[in-house]
Amino acid sequence: MSVKTRVYEGKAKILYTTDDPEILLAEFKDDATAFNAQKRGSIEKKGVINCSISSQIFQQLEAHGIRTHYIDTPAPDQMRVKALKILPLEVVVRNIAAGSLCQQTGLALGTVLKKPLVEFYYKNDQLGDPLLTSDRLFLLELATPEQVDTIAHLALQINKSLCDFFGRCNITLVDFKLEFGLDAQQQLLLADEISPDTSRLWDNSKQSDPNLRVLDKDRFRRDLGNVENAYQEVLQRVLKAIESSN
Amino acid sequence: MSVKTRVYEGKAKILYTTDDPEILLAEFKDDATAFNAQKRGSIEKKGVINCSISSQIFQQLEAHGIRTHYIDTPAPDQMRVKALKILPLEVVVRNIAAGSLCQQTGLALGTVLKKPLVEFYYKNDQLGDPLLTSDRLFLLELATPEQVDTIAHLALQINKSLCDFFGRCNITLVDFKLEFGLDAQQQLLLADEISPDTSRLWDNSKQSDPNLRVLDKDRFRRDLGNVENAYQEVLQRVLKAIESSN
Ligand SMILES: Nc1ncnc2c1ncn2[C@@H]1O[C@H](COP(=O)(O)OP(=O)(O)OP(=O)(O)O)[C@@H](O)[C@H]1O
Ligand SMILES: Nc1ncnc2c1ncn2[C@@H]1O[C@H](COP(=O)(O)OP(=O)(O)OP(=O)(O)O)[C@@H](O)[C@H]1O
Ligand SMILES: [Mg+2]
Ligand SMILES: [Mg+2]
Repeated sequence: MSVKTRVYEGKAKILYTTDDPEILLAEFKDDATAFNAQKRGSIEKKGVINCSISSQIFQQLEAHGIRTHYIDTPAPDQMRVKALKILPLEVVVRNIAAGSLCQQTGLALGTVLKKPLVEFYYKNDQLGDPLLTSDRLFLLELATPEQVDTIAHLALQINKSLCDFFGRCNITLVDFKLEFGLDAQQQLLLADEISPDTSRLWDNSKQSDPNLRVLDKDRFRRDLGNVENAYQEVLQRVLKAIESSN
Repeated sequence: MSVKTRVYEGKAKILYTTDDPEILLAEFKDDATAFNAQKRGSIEKKGVINCSISSQIFQQLEAHGIRTHYIDTPAPDQMRVKALKILPLEVVVRNIAAGSLCQQTGLALGTVLKKPLVEFYYKNDQLGDPLLTSDRLFLLELATPEQVDTIAHLALQINKSLCDFFGRCNITLVDFKLEFGLDAQQQLLLADEISPDTSRLWDNSKQSDPNLRVLDKDRFRRDLGNVENAYQEVLQRVLKAIESSN
């Protein structure tokens, strides 16, 4: 293997080129940021944990017929992925009201939505990843109407599959963020990561205390403590669920 | 006429009951606020000016077949209106990018939009009047799909009519905010006011200097000076345009 070149360093991952121009290596970091990087820190072993969780989830989704960028996991904190042109969209699926949805609508934290909400945000750190209406999305030409339709459909399919999977982990999937990209054939693939950094996961075995239930980055955002333990707990349950389904 | 009772005091107007339960009296104030009332001040004669401009515009729109709450103008700063149940929506029509659209999309101030944009915001001061997607609007049950369709259609009709009217004033209508309400028969009527407080108006005779062109509340928001003069100038041109069309 030739010397790898750093393509991009983000807040949670570093991307490297590989011998194959169609393949990238994503290295997951322990760095944690929140509130558009205003809050910074580090979560012990997060790189390895998120890489493992993400790898398992992508494989599960592939098994359910959803095409992802995932290739393999050559090292505990490294994932090989198909190199894509990422659409500048953060696609958020919500089953229960939390975070900015509560702040911007007044809905109480924990309100169960009648049906899952698929929302589009402009993936643009400088602007703070603002919410998009469909008119704004098309005005900015961030995707075609066909792509938006496909993404919304895929997002709901992925949500079904993940709700089921996390259910088997005794975890409620509150919401999560997806990114999609185009391969050389202009095919839309699920990209980036799915982990406690990019989702809200509530422990079903601790219904009595809303804060105790949190198994995701909200522990870091809201200084709830025991961040590492929560991430580790998610990984253990994910591995157990997969083991028992084989 | 019996003693009038104050129904509501807002940032720009006071509403009073009248002898007729179906009619309210709106008194326009000189008070000016911006940035969700964080900035406060007063604009000399604004009450009278905005009441006059609004009255003229509502009559123009009625003449073009658009139903409004406007009844008459019993005093220079007072408008009699049909009492409505106001929908908690701020309906914004945009012809040119300005304000929060620029901040949230990165579009440059002054970008001419290929077609007018109709946007819905949640009329909720506590939440800071946040932008709504259609999914959020329906999730919060702020209006029915039929009402939203009707409003979007009316908003574009009103925009056409107003662009034409302000064109005759040698003014470019950049954007404006509308409110709609339901009468006792559940009919949707245009309500509130249309004035330099609720629209962006750019003087066509001063194309060279973007700040000099501003004839609306942005002079107050952005401390551009000559606020009273700008409001007065809009009223003069509105009256002249109406005079010459009679
Ligand atoms: N298959 C892929 N091909 C190319 N780029 C990808 C792929 N999957 C993810 N990416 C991109 O790699 C970067 C991952 O880095 P990271 O998650 O640390 O970024 P970030 O700090 O979240 O910043 P941002 O996502 O805003 O660029 C992201 O920009 C993501 O969109
Ligand atoms: N025809 C009408 N019937 C009933 N209420 C009306 C009518 N037209 C306007 N209103 C309401 O009267 C109030 C006018 O006051 P003003 O414009 O000062 O309010 P505001 O400070 O902007 O606060 P708000 O956030 O309530 O609009 C608004 O709440 C507006 O929605
Ligand atoms: Mg990222
Ligand atoms: Mg108002």
